[in-house]
Amino acid sequence: MIIVLKPNCEESDIRTLTGVAEKEGVRVNHIVGTDLTVLGLVGDTSRIDPGIIESHRFVERVMKVNEPYKMANIKFHPEPTVVTAGRSVIGGKKLAVIAGPCSVESEEQIINIAREVKKLGASFLRGGAFKPRTSPYSFQGLEYGGLELLATARKETGLPIVSEIMSTKDIDKFEECVDVIQVGARNMQNFDMLKALGGVSRPILLKRGLSATIEEWLMSAEYIMAGGNEQIILCERGIRTFETFTRNTQDISAIPAVKSLSHLPVLVDPSHSTGKYWMVEAMARAAIAAGADGLLIEVHNDPVHALCDGQQSIKPGRFGAIMEQITALAPLLGREV
Amino acid sequence: MIIVLKPNCEESDIRTLTGVAEKEGVRVNHIVGTDLTVLGLVGDTSRIDPGIIESHRFVERVMKVNEPYKMANIKFHPEPTVVTAGRSVIGGKKLAVIAGPCSVESEEQIINIAREVKKLGASFLRGGAFKPRTSPYSFQGLEYGGLELLATARKETGLPIVSEIMSTKDIDKFEECVDVIQVGARNMQNFDMLKALGGVSRPILLKRGLSATIEEWLMSAEYIMAGGNEQIILCERGIRTFETFTRNTQDISAIPAVKSLSHLPVLVDPSHSTGKYWMVEAMARAAIAAGADGLLIEVHNDPVHALCDGQQSIKPGRFGAIMEQITALAPLLGREV
Amino acid sequence: MIIVLKPNCEESDIRTLTGVAEKEGVRVNHIVGTDLTVLGLVGDTSRIDPGIIESHRFVERVMKVNEPYKMANIKFHPEPTVVTAGRSVIGGKKLAVIAGPCSVESEEQIINIAREVKKLGASFLRGGAFKPRTSPYSFQGLEYGGLELLATARKETGLPIVSEIMSTKDIDKFEECVDVIQVGARNMQNFDMLKALGGVSRPILLKRGLSATIEEWLMSAEYIMAGGNEQIILCERGIRTFETFTRNTQDISAIPAVKSLSHLPVLVDPSHSTGKYWMVEAMARAAIAAGADGLLIEVHNDPVHALCDGQQSIKPGRFGAIMEQITALAPLLGREV
Amino acid sequence: MIIVLKPNCEESDIRTLTGVAEKEGVRVNHIVGTDLTVLGLVGDTSRIDPGIIESHRFVERVMKVNEPYKMANIKFHPEPTVVTAGRSVIGGKKLAVIAGPCSVESEEQIINIAREVKKLGASFLRGGAFKPRTSPYSFQGLEYGGLELLATARKETGLPIVSEIMSTKDIDKFEECVDVIQVGARNMQNFDMLKALGGVSRPILLKRGLSATIEEWLMSAEYIMAGGNEQIILCERGIRTFETFTRNTQDISAIPAVKSLSHLPVLVDPSHSTGKYWMVEAMARAAIAAGADGLLIEVHNDPVHALCDGQQSIKPGRFGAIMEQITALAPLLGREV
Repeated sequence: MIIVLKPNCEESDIRTLTGVAEKEGVRVNHIVGTDLTVLGLVGDTSRIDPGIIESHRFVERVMKVNEPYKMANIKFHPEPTVVTAGRSVIGGKKLAVIAGPCSVESEEQIINIAREVKKLGASFLRGGAFKPRTSPYSFQGLEYGGLELLATARKETGLPIVSEIMSTKDIDKFEECVDVIQVGARNMQNFDMLKALGGVSRPILLKRGLSATIEEWLMSAEYIMAGGNEQIILCERGIRTFETFTRNTQDISAIPAVKSLSHLPVLVDPSHSTGKYWMVEAMARAAIAAGADGLLIEVHNDPVHALCDGQQSIKPGRFGAIMEQITALAPLLGREV
Repeated sequence: MIIVLKPNCEESDIRTLTGVAEKEGVRVNHIVGTDLTVLGLVGDTSRIDPGIIESHRFVERVMKVNEPYKMANIKFHPEPTVVTAGRSVIGGKKLAVIAGPCSVESEEQIINIAREVKKLGASFLRGGAFKPRTSPYSFQGLEYGGLELLATARKETGLPIVSEIMSTKDIDKFEECVDVIQVGARNMQNFDMLKALGGVSRPILLKRGLSATIEEWLMSAEYIMAGGNEQIILCERGIRTFETFTRNTQDISAIPAVKSLSHLPVLVDPSHSTGKYWMVEAMARAAIAAGADGLLIEVHNDPVHALCDGQQSIKPGRFGAIMEQITALAPLLGREV
Repeated sequence: MIIVLKPNCEESDIRTLTGVAEKEGVRVNHIVGTDLTVLGLVGDTSRIDPGIIESHRFVERVMKVNEPYKMANIKFHPEPTVVTAGRSVIGGKKLAVIAGPCSVESEEQIINIAREVKKLGASFLRGGAFKPRTSPYSFQGLEYGGLELLATARKETGLPIVSEIMSTKDIDKFEECVDVIQVGARNMQNFDMLKALGGVSRPILLKRGLSATIEEWLMSAEYIMAGGNEQIILCERGIRTFETFTRNTQDISAIPAVKSLSHLPVLVDPSHSTGKYWMVEAMARAAIAAGADGLLIEVHNDPVHALCDGQQSIKPGRFGAIMEQITALAPLLGREV
Repeated sequence: MIIVLKPNCEESDIRTLTGVAEKEGVRVNHIVGTDLTVLGLVGDTSRIDPGIIESHRFVERVMKVNEPYKMANIKFHPEPTVVTAGRSVIGGKKLAVIAGPCSVESEEQIINIAREVKKLGASFLRGGAFKPRTSPYSFQGLEYGGLELLATARKETGLPIVSEIMSTKDIDKFEECVDVIQVGARNMQNFDMLKALGGVSRPILLKRGLSATIEEWLMSAEYIMAGGNEQIILCERGIRTFETFTRNTQDISAIPAVKSLSHLPVLVDPSHSTGKYWMVEAMARAAIAAGADGLLIEVHNDPVHALCDGQQSIKPGRFGAIMEQITALAPLLGREV
């Protein structure tokens, strides 16, 4: 941690801060220039709150040097994490593809789609039972019934299932029913949820919040990991920017960024980011080319009658085309499908 | 709702959409131009999902005309809402000022600050018992003990108390202990929480999410209102933009915007938005001048020893100066403190 | 300047950087921690390019400590700058109000509006002769004829005139004809223009770019000042964010921010930022309350027949109301109109 | 164009707008609902300014239906544009790679790099002679001398050269010396420059502005095309968002977006967008996978002694690796290098 002091700070001010730091076992180096005094804190500064330092009126700025996350940090865990769920894995050499409808609508629908995506190469089935909808008047999902239909589809196809949790009161139910528990973008900083998921035995797929920095995203992973659950899968699903042509802006550069900072696997969701079915194919290729560990794609057998997000769902035919393309891409990147 | 069709759409495509609309009791007007076909839907389109319409491959774009919120909409409720809590009100002619520390730290601290801010004109006491912290390693609040200390401070001063809820499992406790339940920016789209708060008898202070549009913010209010609780107070606390000098960018223009769209009262939190104690005064004046119904301000008697957010907390002396300034401003705006 | 090295850097790496710094007469302090090595550079680092330092593969990050602007910096010029143009001033105790139409349309129009705004208290007349339009097919202004009409209006009313320059080839003409030369948001980093304006004897009104940080904005002022022209007026006109209800987001917190960093006067343009005539009044009050040195407001006698930006122009009646309101506000802030 | 009227609008208001539209030869369709009146304008609405329509106090909102660009629009020009410069092309089946240093520094430097990148497969040489620098105190380029050195490098290698123009007064010189004239992000809406380039016989490489929407970017292309120069190459170089890990956020989804809207070729610059040399490789692959027509990459033989942007420059070795990777990728996308 680097503390920049105001030009007119006094000797006693430096002593005050030095005292605060040394109380936490941190050593303080002074850099005194002509119009600048800087303190360099060396040691474990994790218990020193930058906000408190900045509240001193003689402090100009505090700059963090170390990343605030530890368990998610590649520096302390250089081996890539591989998450296993059922017979499928995420991370490592094999690309993972999670596919399925935005929401589970009926037994026939989910089983049909599950069979189709399995046949085309998906390794996981996704499907929403509880849906986060901006409007209270929109379809909210089949809820517990939806989870049961997903379980049926898993039984039919063997595909492990991924579904989004919306409420901490459903944690036991999800732990029992699904193979990977998804935390949606809007709950990325629902800390109550993150803490609760730290005690769960299922892997967590953690979507990036709409306006979450990469550091905040990794800190949310850290919350779950600090609670004891280290099976975290990150998923980039677009960030909010000024551009309105796409629903969000897929931050493809976040893939190499996260890979340089963390050992956790990273997927990309090109359906939610673009909000346009005809862009999914190009963005799926780009994600894999940039080094993503896999994809999360909305596939629906009948998008025009889907109960939600039809505009971004692709049909099995197009999904098959994407699978072919990433299968061709994979060996160039030292990966396989 | 306006549907723009692709140039090469066919007669049968138009019939398909017309059928969808008419099934919902909505009338369809056709506008057929030389290189453009547009359908204008008239009637209650609230059950028609724009995403589904856009999933038709012959649709270019869907444009909503009506606001998706009803109970929060000024069109259907032209009278401004006035929220009452204890002996204080928010909304109407009187400006409301909610003041207090970021987090409750001790009985002495909260009672001292409560007395100070009351003396200086605050009408509510705020204080965090459960704190949303980006890091799992930061101080998380005194939790239930904090709520009790707030209750003690209320007893001492008569000020109604405002505190943030982090978990749906605490709803009963909050309903019992606090006068206004705050939903933080990170939980603005925690729909499980919003639904649960719809059944609560306490007013809800709903902070704007970091990257929430004004429409999404009002839709979150709508969620609570649709559940039966119409006592909503909105609070602008800064949005995330590219500018890093301030922690967030206070969107002052959201005040007149919300006032034109909704009957709900709007407060401004200049402490969290700027993240800098020395900016609070200027932004507090600007908020009131723009028409805000009041302020939410972090006040601490000893910011350099605060357990969180010291950098944005002001001391009682400066809070007193702000109260004087807004007291002088109020009559120019037809308000009073 | 602070240089953070990678954990595995070597002694020779440190020597390399030390050599680079010492060649520029800068002293280097070492902070060597357990898993961290930091170099603190003390002295005039302005000739050391952070990008070059970062290009060394053993460097993790470079953090600037000093502001890169000097002439615009309040640290080296604590007295506020007061800009004079004709009989009017910007900066200092008196609030400056620049009013007039988006574009000059005819002699009758500009003289009428000039008389109205002067009568109501404006101290400058604005009017576009050259218009920056997103579309090549939109009205581009009356150009040189517009400048002449502005000169006529100045002769009639005595109001100094402010107009936007679009091309360096027009600099002589502008220097001759207008009292304050405006640089629009889109040209804020047209460095060729900024350099040319450094040699001009007229004050420059420098609008903030749509996505310019406060530092970049001040650096653009520095460009002009470094060329010899220190008469700079800054103008906040909204930044681009994700919110689409308003055209841009007026960054009111930039006012106290700039006031803490620079001695230059700051105006606010509530017309372009909001893009909505009915919001101008609230935002004008907020700007003044936050400490702005004045306003730039679009006023048109007949907005529905304006040749551009009618949606954000107010009529003289509403302008009069704004003048009354800020006249009442001014004394509370130690200002006058 | 769709005009939404306020609920309480009157018959005479509709007549007013109808008159405005019909004067421009545009037909008006009325959609009158229970709480909504909408006017649909059919015909060539390009001369109707939405701002003027919105300035009517009885108008709620105006929604454009047609894209405002014509010459850049794929609807009116379905064949992809292929731009030729010297013996190289951009657009069409072959991927174009423009490589070279941020700035030309010496004859030896530019010739060495030119030879290297040519050998490794680049089809164009880039090099800055005039540099847009945020600080007036930074190296501004070798200027005219730099152009001459580029010409020498072209003579040596046969590679056509690409260089950025900063001033309209240099247009003749650039037209004479360079093969492709680059307009930088900061000048994307320097309309004076765009108009001047409309009369030039060289292709223009138009970078996307830092906060330009896709529509604004295409409108800037339209400006040049409307002036007579239809040889435009678009280049995505990152947009400004809240994320600070990368310098900007590369908007990969803009590639399929632009491809669906325009016939112009689109390149990607992964050097400026990320600002980190170690990310260039991943982003170059992603760009090509998403359908870009080529790349613009900063290559320097000695980044740690580069005079600018060393942190994002790659060495020839890494550039060779990128060329190999995209050469392998190309056939999967129906392209060749």
